[in-house]
Amino acid sequence: MTIQILDLTVDDLRFPTSRELDGSDAMNEAPDYSVAYVTLKTDHPDLVGHGITFTIGRGNEICAAAVEALRSRVVGLRLEKIAGDMAGFWRHMTSDSQLRWLGPEKGVIHLATAAIVNAVWDLWAKAEKKPLWKLVADFTPEQFVNCIDFRYLTDVLTPEEALSMLTRLKESQADRLSILERDGYPAYTTSAGWLGYSDERLRELCRQRLSEGWEVFKIKVGRDLEDDRRRCRIIREEIGPDRRLLTDANQVWDVSTAIEWMRQLAEFDPWMIEEPTSPDDILGYAKIAKALHPIRVAGGEHCANRIMFKQFLEANAMQVCQIDACRLGGVNEVLAVLLMAAKYDVPVCPHAGGVGLCEYVQHLSIIDYLCVSGSLENRMAEHAGTCHEHFLDPIQIQNGHYLLPQTPGYSITMHEKSIENARFPEGKYWSDPNS
Amino acid sequence: MTIQILDLTVDDLRFPTSRELDGSDAMNEAPDYSVAYVTLKTDHPDLVGHGITFTIGRGNEICAAAVEALRSRVVGLRLEKIAGDMAGFWRHMTSDSQLRWLGPEKGVIHLATAAIVNAVWDLWAKAEKKPLWKLVADFTPEQFVNCIDFRYLTDVLTPEEALSMLTRLKESQADRLSILERDGYPAYTTSAGWLGYSDERLRELCRQRLSEGWEVFKIKVGRDLEDDRRRCRIIREEIGPDRRLLTDANQVWDVSTAIEWMRQLAEFDPWMIEEPTSPDDILGYAKIAKALHPIRVAGGEHCANRIMFKQFLEANAMQVCQIDACRLGGVNEVLAVLLMAAKYDVPVCPHAGGVGLCEYVQHLSIIDYLCVSGSLENRMAEHAGTCHEHFLDPIQIQNGHYLLPQTPGYSITMHEKSIENARFPEGKYWSDPNS
Repeated sequence: MTIQILDLTVDDLRFPTSRELDGSDAMNEAPDYSVAYVTLKTDHPDLVGHGITFTIGRGNEICAAAVEALRSRVVGLRLEKIAGDMAGFWRHMTSDSQLRWLGPEKGVIHLATAAIVNAVWDLWAKAEKKPLWKLVADFTPEQFVNCIDFRYLTDVLTPEEALSMLTRLKESQADRLSILERDGYPAYTTSAGWLGYSDERLRELCRQRLSEGWEVFKIKVGRDLEDDRRRCRIIREEIGPDRRLLTDANQVWDVSTAIEWMRQLAEFDPWMIEEPTSPDDILGYAKIAKALHPIRVAGGEHCANRIMFKQFLEANAMQVCQIDACRLGGVNEVLAVLLMAAKYDVPVCPHAGGVGLCEYVQHLSIIDYLCVSGSLENRMAEHAGTCHEHFLDPIQIQNGHYLLPQTPGYSITMHEKSIENARFPEGKYWSDPNS
Repeated sequence: MTIQILDLTVDDLRFPTSRELDGSDAMNEAPDYSVAYVTLKTDHPDLVGHGITFTIGRGNEICAAAVEALRSRVVGLRLEKIAGDMAGFWRHMTSDSQLRWLGPEKGVIHLATAAIVNAVWDLWAKAEKKPLWKLVADFTPEQFVNCIDFRYLTDVLTPEEALSMLTRLKESQADRLSILERDGYPAYTTSAGWLGYSDERLRELCRQRLSEGWEVFKIKVGRDLEDDRRRCRIIREEIGPDRRLLTDANQVWDVSTAIEWMRQLAEFDPWMIEEPTSPDDILGYAKIAKALHPIRVAGGEHCANRIMFKQFLEANAMQVCQIDACRLGGVNEVLAVLLMAAKYDVPVCPHAGGVGLCEYVQHLSIIDYLCVSGSLENRMAEHAGTCHEHFLDPIQIQNGHYLLPQTPGYSITMHEKSIENARFPEGKYWSDPNS
């Protein structure tokens, strides 16, 4: 069957999460989780691709405008042509000679690229009647490598090296799949530790999450040291000395402040500190990691592209690699980062939460385990309990693990009713003050 | 006199430069030089601030949308309050808790920040009845430091250190001013070497530029090696063995290609290679610089922010620092980079050309010499001869030097007629095929 992409539409959808202070941290006071929601229509009325990029509210319209600017680069293409040269398609998407001035490959234009690229992958997986993770897991190593644009990466990873890494793991893939089918993919929860929550709510949420089977907890830090110490103490009291406590500063510190502050929290045995300073500061991360060892430095949620990840990994600046499914330019670029992380033996623990990110990263972590790293050691995908009700095929969590998604596609198609309500500014969430 | 900013408007202005292949290089085939043109209206009808961010065509509307999104952060403010805490104002502009997700401090949202911040500086300089360079040159070292947000910089440069650097140079400033008043600020020309030009045009333009007094020439390379060798030979024949030849690859190479390719051009004695690979690749630049020494590596035109420059400088990855007046978030962030470059003794040679960039960077280079580096050694501001006719106070070039601008403001106010013609898509340049 041949499939042609006939049209692209984009919706500015926003969810009023700031009303509950979900997602509040030291840098992001009150996010309204939002997506630019891309729909690719084809010449098969029942075959539609969906993709998102994620933002936290204001500015979502700018991402939608950038999607529109990229529209002509995808409409009219045939899926089989895209699928036959996925790296070429990705290069095409990121190489408009005028639009690349806006990045290149970073910020709004790259977020918009992700929405479209992710929609193409959704379309492809649906056409193959497979969940995305299985589409990729069924690739030969050659097909996998053919999805990646290696431009700017070859001083650290060549296509030949990638091929040999993938080939080495291929024959044991079935064993790993059985493990995932039995247990799911390990996750950790962020839903308890938002800065905007009271101590009582923090304690109560810890207990609730423990009872649900969660083993790893994350807490937001960085606004006030005494406050952080009190909250770390509460969470340690609740989770005990052996469970992992993750900390996340959301970029609020300079290098020396990060080092001093975290030394003050070291007694609570944090396993990692996430985003201690600017997400662009590779050398700064490296200084912090060296000073704080054995506390790991984690980052990636705001890491602009594969070239930045390449350096973070090469410079030993990042001991936990937190890819984001929409900050990177879609699945193709994520695959490149998975390979580089595996080469440097750095665990990939994707950033998630918000709206749709959990739905996305479950696939990416599964691909990482089945095809790329072959390991679950120190790997876990982030989980937050927000906005899953809007998806046709929402994540399924059991005992602190993501269960393998089974529905064809990339799990991001939304309910019509959710789309209607969230449309900004005319949807009910925004036009009706009582919604 | 108190001044309040009452309104902000933004125009999407585009100039059809692609019709002449001005500005063509290995990555940018056919740019249409464009600006998002910001106008700040005040409660004084004759006092208006103008600012731009620069793009090369498509996507300019996205920058304009981002300016609109930032509108509420500046409208209503009083100039004296901004001027009294310029660093605080800049932090305010870059810290919208939702909009910063789109960067942070990079890509479209940062380009838009630059347009507004530059407009505020223009307004301030006009209110003080001084050209921008003089407004800044008249600052005390304390006032200068108070314009800079040192967040994320203090591991490399503290406010105290900056203050002592500036204080050291202050008393000799008048001597340097006399030199600039006599000679102007040194420039080099890019107008001869665009890739889209024929050999004949290249040769003819070289001769013309030599007769105008230019001493330093830049040529675009990277599309085809034999072509580059032929064009380098032509330009060397024309300019002789002693004048400086600069080369610019506009990001087309991977690290190893950059090294091999430039070794093939070494016989033409290039003084520097600009943008040899991804503008995000600090470690890659460092590898190239090490391998190609004594050919300098230059970059900055696409360097996203002060945190990236910090690392390029610290890692000895950049021997020529090419700030961009609009890629960085306006004058405040430029001042921070000037200071870091001076600390590492790396010459600042601003990127210019396009539309308005020459008008901007002349001020920045003058400030660098008068206040920050105190040196002209290996310093030169880029020049290209495009689009100057659109400005009320265009650059004045004499004998390969920028003459000191004298009109109050930041030299970016455009003729009404130019604005009308360039408005996209309704202006004459775009609606009238014969324009």
